[in-house]
Amino acid sequence: MTDLNLLGKQAVAAKYEMQLLGTQEKNHGLLKAAEKLLEKREEILSANERDIRRGEENGMHPGLIDRLRLNDARIEAMAEGLRQIVELPDPIGEEMEAFVRPNGLKISRVRVPLGVIGIIYESRPNVTADAFGLCFKSGNAVILKGGSDAIESNIAIAKVLREALEECGLNRDAVLLIEDTDREITKEFMRLNNYVDVLIPRGSAGLIRTVVENSTIPVIETGSGNCHIYVDKDADIEKAVPIIVNAKTQRIGVCNACESLVVHEKISEKLLPELSKALREKNVEIRADKQAMAFMTDCMEATEEDFAKEYLDYIISVKTVSDVKEAIAHINKNNTRHSEAIITENKETAEMFLRGVDAACVYVNASTRFTDGFEFGFGAEIGISTQKLHARGPMGLKELTSYQYRILGEGQIRP
Amino acid sequence: MTDLNLLGKQAVAAKYEMQLLGTQEKNHGLLKAAEKLLEKREEILSANERDIRRGEENGMHPGLIDRLRLNDARIEAMAEGLRQIVELPDPIGEEMEAFVRPNGLKISRVRVPLGVIGIIYESRPNVTADAFGLCFKSGNAVILKGGSDAIESNIAIAKVLREALEECGLNRDAVLLIEDTDREITKEFMRLNNYVDVLIPRGSAGLIRTVVENSTIPVIETGSGNCHIYVDKDADIEKAVPIIVNAKTQRIGVCNACESLVVHEKISEKLLPELSKALREKNVEIRADKQAMAFMTDCMEATEEDFAKEYLDYIISVKTVSDVKEAIAHINKNNTRHSEAIITENKETAEMFLRGVDAACVYVNASTRFTDGFEFGFGAEIGISTQKLHARGPMGLKELTSYQYRILGEGQIRP
Repeated sequence: MTDLNLLGKQAVAAKYEMQLLGTQEKNHGLLKAAEKLLEKREEILSANERDIRRGEENGMHPGLIDRLRLNDARIEAMAEGLRQIVELPDPIGEEMEAFVRPNGLKISRVRVPLGVIGIIYESRPNVTADAFGLCFKSGNAVILKGGSDAIESNIAIAKVLREALEECGLNRDAVLLIEDTDREITKEFMRLNNYVDVLIPRGSAGLIRTVVENSTIPVIETGSGNCHIYVDKDADIEKAVPIIVNAKTQRIGVCNACESLVVHEKISEKLLPELSKALREKNVEIRADKQAMAFMTDCMEATEEDFAKEYLDYIISVKTVSDVKEAIAHINKNNTRHSEAIITENKETAEMFLRGVDAACVYVNASTRFTDGFEFGFGAEIGISTQKLHARGPMGLKELTSYQYRILGEGQIRP
Repeated sequence: MTDLNLLGKQAVAAKYEMQLLGTQEKNHGLLKAAEKLLEKREEILSANERDIRRGEENGMHPGLIDRLRLNDARIEAMAEGLRQIVELPDPIGEEMEAFVRPNGLKISRVRVPLGVIGIIYESRPNVTADAFGLCFKSGNAVILKGGSDAIESNIAIAKVLREALEECGLNRDAVLLIEDTDREITKEFMRLNNYVDVLIPRGSAGLIRTVVENSTIPVIETGSGNCHIYVDKDADIEKAVPIIVNAKTQRIGVCNACESLVVHEKISEKLLPELSKALREKNVEIRADKQAMAFMTDCMEATEEDFAKEYLDYIISVKTVSDVKEAIAHINKNNTRHSEAIITENKETAEMFLRGVDAACVYVNASTRFTDGFEFGFGAEIGISTQKLHARGPMGLKELTSYQYRILGEGQIRP
């Protein structure tokens, strides 16, 4: 079995070198890695072929096989991803704050890397290159633990990345892959506090729950999204219908899709007939409470479970409320702290909604589908955080950093 | 046994009210709490007397009895602490960032409360009021779990705080105390993810380790300090000696005291005789490596364990190095990521030290004893974080907050 303590020590040694690197050196490493991914594509594709064959032999679901599969286009996308990260500003070294104390001490708060980041992910092998790119540009060493389905692909990709770093005179241990596929090793990895500063799980709700429950390392939780749209009595229906249709159907399997509608009782009669028609055209099944059902044909009655569910499917639930306070309470009870929207022309009501709803992203008159690192202009994304500690919402390069206080004195002592 | 689910629900209900409060309402609650602590001092003191009597009967160490003991002055200090928090700026609602996307979406990042904070602490009952004050001003609800030694005092103080909130028309569940002293309840508390957003342990290294290892809630680790001072070959001895004496002896039992000295071999002969004389005058025992011992009389040889130890006592270890790189490596190997200092007049060497050392606070030519929320000008402190996630170094009100993205649109949908 992999000696995780040894791996941890290698990562820590690399971390200390990483925190001294300048932007150019990091960009050089990233460009070389992009170049080598293309150069070694045959090796990567043949390793991936072995993963796929094994998956097929084990009766893996075709959808999962598709996620696992690499081809020329996907390898080019990985390389392009790394080149895009080169273009992003380097967050490290930024002076976030500076002040002088009455005793003359000059204190500044400077952005530094987190250190060693652990990433636990599932069957998409492209995460191996993507996660490396983001961690590396933000000055971190990374230990990767991918899914066993993609192990041969991951080994091949990690090997290429490490070779690229070495060719640039950089420490190849800035990216390390746990090659073991034993489940016990993942548990042990989650307790590697002596070496790993942060753990980021990427994947299904089940994976994330397992990491949260078992890790003694601080975890950044990237979670699921039971996102709501609340249509207020003062909503503009011309805005509401296209926003809801977009948020529900533009892409159904994603965490920022709308799963649940909340409707003010005074707008139901005007909104719901038109909306249900538009949703039905997109084959969306509607599950509504009794009050809302009165304005729609062909719709099922919603249960309490419906309101708490992330469907990730062509289904939406509808709840009627008598004011914005009830809407806020309903959302706070059922949401997953991801993205929530209000449709209203009333500024005061919008303000109440913004202040009252507990979620990473709160929208007024826009689709929840914009919760995304690229849509926010971060240029990249490691995930969407649904926790409150450290980072919330889309996480780009800055969210992969910490800070350090630097204090310059001239002999000051504490009286 | 306390029904923690019920307590959690009460805290969550209070949290939603808290996030809507304005600064004035919060300040009003804090002032009323300060007033009532003084008004009800007899009740608090008599509860405290019962804790002390029980402690004495159980043969509690006199030092611990002292930490447990309240008197008029300590109750006045608690009230004064709350009044000082009133004077601090309210961090909630601050616009931390704002930008407009090409599609016209206006995105702002706004400071919001963390939500429900759990605090687990030991025998000082004043923490009950202090922690409440900081959490309340930053808009959070708090669930407190104090040590069993101080349970009667804690119950009495929490009762007063809750009464004060109620008298102001605020939700008294903004502060909740777990009155159970059973150890099992602490374990259960650490897994209350459905209700508690963050857990902050305050106390001994043992307590903190237990929380880190058992909590499934995100933890902010406030840790111990094995702080170093590195005296470079280009150091000004006139600065070095007073700084070291101050950092070692101004107060020995604190996490920002200096525990270990690192000396450049080219300055040993000049520094050590004078320094050892000054330290001896303060009764500091010196444990040094062989090279350093040559320049000092009456000193023990240091072991590897000495270099890793937080003495919290009149003891200091001394390690000789041949350059700043070796100093950085020695510190990174042995430190606890708290506070480290370099004494040098060489700007380049100082810069290397600042970039190379992995710690929350890194000093040039000043005493490590300044790592403190008050010394940094934060006006208050909930602890010193030694982890990298969320907050690092002294934690004031801002460090008890999270943020939320607010996105204002005019009907934007994702293409």
